[in-house]
Amino acid sequence: MARFEIHDRLRIDAHTLGRFQLCHLLLHKNAVLPWFILVPETDAADLLDLPEDLRNSAVNEAAFVSDFIKGTLGYPKTNFASIGNVVPQLHLHVVGRRADDPCWPAPVWGNLHQIQKYSTPELRRFTGLLGRYPTFKVAMR
Amino acid sequence: MARFEIHDRLRIDAHTLGRFQLCHLLLHKNAVLPWFILVPETDAADLLDLPEDLRNSAVNEAAFVSDFIKGTLGYPKTNFASIGNVVPQLHLHVVGRRADDPCWPAPVWGNLHQIQKYSTPELRRFTGLLGRYPTFKVAMR
Repeated sequence: MARFEIHDRLRIDAHTLGRFQLCHLLLHKNAVLPWFILVPETDAADLLDLPEDLRNSAVNEAAFVSDFIKGTLGYPKTNFASIGNVVPQLHLHVVGRRADDPCWPAPVWGNLHQIQKYSTPELRRFTGLLGRYPTFKVAMR
Repeated sequence: MARFEIHDRLRIDAHTLGRFQLCHLLLHKNAVLPWFILVPETDAADLLDLPEDLRNSAVNEAAFVSDFIKGTLGYPKTNFASIGNVVPQLHLHVVGRRADDPCWPAPVWGNLHQIQKYSTPELRRFTGLLGRYPTFKVAMR
């Protein structure tokens, strides 16, 4: 099998933080909200097409990210979605939300017009904190 | 425990078709796209907060619906999401999509402006076909 490559569009829009056992973990470059993107190493296009064991693993890794957003970053709510109408490579969104965020209550896709960037120390802080999840391997330091 | 009630907003926006073992199955009243909504019987607000076994069951039932949308209704793609910023009761969207649909490539939430209604025979046809899934129990005939 050819080496798995993350889609160019995702690489451009997001920072590559590292990976869990199945999914690469990206962070959308817009820092207005904690918007994580998981990319499982598969050729399937839709989450619900994955074989049950892989699907459960992917959703379980998304749950680690949701736990991180709530428990560490302090957001009360996460939105979870697998859409892929624009970028055909399967990817899962896990987005921290709160009632005073700039996009609430609209979903982020197409509605997040405010822009903010992460600093390198902020990205290092995120990867450092994510390193507490035993199956997470940091890609950047 | 009090009897589980589907949130009024979901009851108003969708037809109640029946239920799987964990989730009630609703169909959004807008017939422009096959837009199914699963409501698991739980008090958790976010999919990724559910205990792993319940989460896997809910996603597995969503996968039956995706299989129905693709295999029976002939849509090549499904979008899957759990958002809940407006309706706080946990619910999962499974939506059939194709590149020539009226909303493509935008997600349906907030972007589906065309409206069409289901006829009673169409709803009966859906529930009849869904009855092929062994764990599905029809609520309306």
